[in-house]
Amino acid sequence: MVAVFGHLNPDTDAITSALVYANFLRRTGVDATAYRLGELNRETAFVLSEAGVVAPEVLPELPKGAPVALVDHNEGAQSVPGLADLTVTRVVDHHKLGDLTTSVPPYLRFEPVGCTATILTKLHREANVSVEPQDARLMLSAILSDTLHFRSPTTTPEDREVVAYLAAIAGITDVTAYALAMFAAKSDLGDTPADQLLKMDYKVFPFGEAKWGIGVIETTNPAYVFGRAEALRQAMDAEKANAGLNGVLLSVVDILNETNRTLVLSATEEKVLREAFGAESAGGVADLGARISRKKQIVPALEAYFAQ
Amino acid sequence: MVAVFGHLNPDTDAITSALVYANFLRRTGVDATAYRLGELNRETAFVLSEAGVVAPEVLPELPKGAPVALVDHNEGAQSVPGLADLTVTRVVDHHKLGDLTTSVPPYLRFEPVGCTATILTKLHREANVSVEPQDARLMLSAILSDTLHFRSPTTTPEDREVVAYLAAIAGITDVTAYALAMFAAKSDLGDTPADQLLKMDYKVFPFGEAKWGIGVIETTNPAYVFGRAEALRQAMDAEKANAGLNGVLLSVVDILNETNRTLVLSATEEKVLREAFGAESAGGVADLGARISRKKQIVPALEAYFAQ
Repeated sequence: MVAVFGHLNPDTDAITSALVYANFLRRTGVDATAYRLGELNRETAFVLSEAGVVAPEVLPELPKGAPVALVDHNEGAQSVPGLADLTVTRVVDHHKLGDLTTSVPPYLRFEPVGCTATILTKLHREANVSVEPQDARLMLSAILSDTLHFRSPTTTPEDREVVAYLAAIAGITDVTAYALAMFAAKSDLGDTPADQLLKMDYKVFPFGEAKWGIGVIETTNPAYVFGRAEALRQAMDAEKANAGLNGVLLSVVDILNETNRTLVLSATEEKVLREAFGAESAGGVADLGARISRKKQIVPALEAYFAQ
Repeated sequence: MVAVFGHLNPDTDAITSALVYANFLRRTGVDATAYRLGELNRETAFVLSEAGVVAPEVLPELPKGAPVALVDHNEGAQSVPGLADLTVTRVVDHHKLGDLTTSVPPYLRFEPVGCTATILTKLHREANVSVEPQDARLMLSAILSDTLHFRSPTTTPEDREVVAYLAAIAGITDVTAYALAMFAAKSDLGDTPADQLLKMDYKVFPFGEAKWGIGVIETTNPAYVFGRAEALRQAMDAEKANAGLNGVLLSVVDILNETNRTLVLSATEEKVLREAFGAESAGGVADLGARISRKKQIVPALEAYFAQ
């Protein structure tokens, strides 16, 4: 049995891609089960509820050498602890290739598109396997989520084409309304503790010798997030110390206005953002303008900065 | 322009996959040119001559950051020196994933099949791009070469199916006769200097702290190779010293009888082969029985041995 899972601090793509890829593997003769590496965020809970799908179980302890399939990630720091003791047989991903190695020739399918689900849809079509309506809804949700309904610069023509294809199968006639409902669910953060808010969509990146943690909160209600800035900064400070990080950022992305105002913790982060982006900070907030994609607009610039 | 190339000491798959993938990319709208990282072996020269195809040029010095596509390999040690300064945008391969990382999300297509050409054929079919007869002949040749006409344990049902598909397009009615002609060309080693014989199909593998060079000569005429054993051992000894290796092996694979008798250099190599395979050496030759696949039967056992 192949255990299929997305990254730590799972988002909608990480959860739904595990579900859909495991189903695809089963339907093509490979015994597979979907798992998750963390709690659902509110958007994902909304998506699963709308689709009538139960969340995957948390990944149990696997025996050494057990076969696993990674979706929507490939770097060890974003995956299950002890990944090196497991046998990675498959990866479907749309990120740059990190520190992954395999002990056997694997199935790898990476494409520079906006969402893993776009690639999964292609896998179905290439294999002449029909997309089930429930899976269509899950994959459409993931693409809308990852691309912020095509607002993100990571969006490709294939993502748009696939959403139109999936909407017809899922019976979703008003994609815009559905996306707004998803984003509203995501933005309904209620009394989520600050450390959970920070970790909701959070990844650690190595930049040369340094390690930075970068969280993103995509919301239609940035005022709510900035209202909790003090508690969030305390959570960032604690995480920086606990994880031995060199820097921590928390980008608050206003989905509808396509802006990024980033919480910064100290003069260290302020200096880097100034020098890497020309972004000035005021009151512990750096204005990163329209840079709303961590993958495409934040991380590459920081990599280039630290590589100098 | 994307430069497309296979591994150092290119074999038929490395050369033909570069040619075919570059052509596929051009036909799907990506400017691409095939190159090679070394001299053609006699089998590959025969294949290109039969197909009426000119060999790709040797890869020129590329500017920093230039986009490249790797076929039939992914590890730095098997690729162009300075690979880390180039931008790997695409890889099509059927080996385990080594030390490759990318700075941008790439196209990766890895499958555990017998030959890169099998994957390339699938790419054509998935994209509804017809396979040109010349490309069909090149890919068929690569699959017959890599799988030793289905004798190697790396062979999968897909490789067999693809060869039947390509034979029809290429107009090759007697695949067995064509394979024998290829293997005869490969075995016609004439007065090739011993150091070139060693390097014809030669790769360096890291095993923990150690680095081993492992050459393979697949031939229908092993007596010719063993007749030159002394000169080959001198070439192995020189290579071991020059490249700072911990061990060097040269496997002489009898294609038609499916046996592997391996030239060993010193007590170091004899000890490792005894302990890793239970293979005894006599007169500087270890009998590795029917282990004819370096990828599937030699390297994994050595990895397991050195990981102890």
